[in-house]
Amino acid sequence: MEKMKIAATARHIPERVVSNDDLAELMETSDEWIYPRTGIHNRHVVDNENTSDLATGVAKKLLEQAGWAPSDLDFIIVSTMSPDALSPHTAAIVQGNIGAENAFAFDLNAACSGFVYGMSVASSFLTSGRYKKGMFIGAEVLSKLVDWKDRTVSVLFGDGAGGVLLEATDEEKGLLAEELQAFGDRGEAILTGRFANKNAFAGEISPLDPYFHQDGRGVYSFATREVPKVLDKALAKAGVSADDVDLYIAHQANHRIIESMAKNFGQPMDKFPTNMAEYGNTSAASPAILLDELVQDGKVKPGMTIAFVGFGGGLAIGAQVWKV
Amino acid sequence: MEKMKIAATARHIPERVVSNDDLAELMETSDEWIYPRTGIHNRHVVDNENTSDLATGVAKKLLEQAGWAPSDLDFIIVSTMSPDALSPHTAAIVQGNIGAENAFAFDLNAACSGFVYGMSVASSFLTSGRYKKGMFIGAEVLSKLVDWKDRTVSVLFGDGAGGVLLEATDEEKGLLAEELQAFGDRGEAILTGRFANKNAFAGEISPLDPYFHQDGRGVYSFATREVPKVLDKALAKAGVSADDVDLYIAHQANHRIIESMAKNFGQPMDKFPTNMAEYGNTSAASPAILLDELVQDGKVKPGMTIAFVGFGGGLAIGAQVWKV
Repeated sequence: MEKMKIAATARHIPERVVSNDDLAELMETSDEWIYPRTGIHNRHVVDNENTSDLATGVAKKLLEQAGWAPSDLDFIIVSTMSPDALSPHTAAIVQGNIGAENAFAFDLNAACSGFVYGMSVASSFLTSGRYKKGMFIGAEVLSKLVDWKDRTVSVLFGDGAGGVLLEATDEEKGLLAEELQAFGDRGEAILTGRFANKNAFAGEISPLDPYFHQDGRGVYSFATREVPKVLDKALAKAGVSADDVDLYIAHQANHRIIESMAKNFGQPMDKFPTNMAEYGNTSAASPAILLDELVQDGKVKPGMTIAFVGFGGGLAIGAQVWKV
Repeated sequence: MEKMKIAATARHIPERVVSNDDLAELMETSDEWIYPRTGIHNRHVVDNENTSDLATGVAKKLLEQAGWAPSDLDFIIVSTMSPDALSPHTAAIVQGNIGAENAFAFDLNAACSGFVYGMSVASSFLTSGRYKKGMFIGAEVLSKLVDWKDRTVSVLFGDGAGGVLLEATDEEKGLLAEELQAFGDRGEAILTGRFANKNAFAGEISPLDPYFHQDGRGVYSFATREVPKVLDKALAKAGVSADDVDLYIAHQANHRIIESMAKNFGQPMDKFPTNMAEYGNTSAASPAILLDELVQDGKVKPGMTIAFVGFGGGLAIGAQVWKV
């Protein structure tokens, strides 16, 4: 076990709620169509915020909750596939906003696996002995990467942010094991956020296309087939059985994928909590938002074994097993 | 010392060379204006490639050089501020292209400090004991983020990629120390790559702006003032003096910044090699391209102490000290 603890959790969700009925006023869709296929009733969408604003909201709550000063932080990592911009990176904006004068900061992009991959990097910094205290946030404003005329993708995504403080510890808790995998040969299944590739000499090589394009059926069958294998390897490395895990905190893309996973591991659905009904798919933010809800509700107890599971764009999959 | 070694280096540069004279045909500028202020004569610009193509070129050369199979890799990290897209991430495309079936992959963005920050993450994975062999690449197609009508920024940047293979070792070599810092309160000094933030409910919150905007004077004075302090801290942590360092491989933004740094540390310019005359500023790729040139030229010898230095967008600064 790599000894460390999750010293705080927090989330920051934009206030504006967009229901399936709201979407039905914009496009030919309905709650009756969306909910059975996805598990989603609502999603939250920004009004005047960008990704760094949501992440800064999380950062402030995290520090307040743990009673840490901004200067206590050694690093700030933000996982996002929807940064404010390519420069400055979102983590640097957060660092400036909270005045974390001793923290370095960078963004990480592993799409919907961004929570697990960010936890992997953050925990390796602690295990290396170089750093003692870090902040990791998953933050997304996916509403800006959605073509709101495209009913195949606009109903799926939402905006939000969540995060954790991580700290080296001597207590018997921390990261038991992880398994991370890439399937880059299938990357075309989830496309978004493409600036035009053009210059004054070659002309336009490829056009601007900010919006999501998704092979929903392909991603669904990929996720239900490959994610359990990755999770299985992580459990084996950790030396725990599926029954030993108290909570599976998985990326909230689709209720049916989660149900399939629970069934695959012979586990009851109450060990696979979900919140996509309220938030939709918030990519790198999704397990962090769910974790914070569970902590606030008193459902995460010391000594529990928790599996985090991410999957999506890249394509990428990741699973970590923690003793918290 | 965290024991590990740089098992291979490689670079991949687009063929098309754009000289200052070529630029003078497009805009009111000249070699006489550009070169004395920047140290740049040429830059390379893509013809039909994107960032993942350059990175894949590096990846193939790295494996060939080290005699590693793609399946030997545990991870692939790509530092970039100019990814092909927000999904799939560039590292996943590389993973798919080379068939690195056992490697996970993600992108990191710390702008022009991306080389040092990527080396920090990659090395912490090795030190953690979780992974043994990794690939780290810095890759940029900045030509797509340049307004070629804006002579204040279009003359500065170039396209290219470089990278390393890193491997855990028992030999007496590896990372001596690092110092990484963020100055997010000054992030507005280097802006680029902003998609419109808009949705069907709030309307347009902020507009599309793909292009670089830079406070050149501000960044210059920031870099000459703050970078030496960060490098000084890294040297102190490593327990080496400025004289002990054999080579300073710094981000190639501007020749005058490098000269100022050499003077600041009382070091001759031949310990501060440069190549921006040929490539311009290639952001996260720049120290990797320079490192590979020095290795190919036989200027990097076993047992040497090397300092890597990055600075730029974020704003962010980083320095690492290695015994190679």
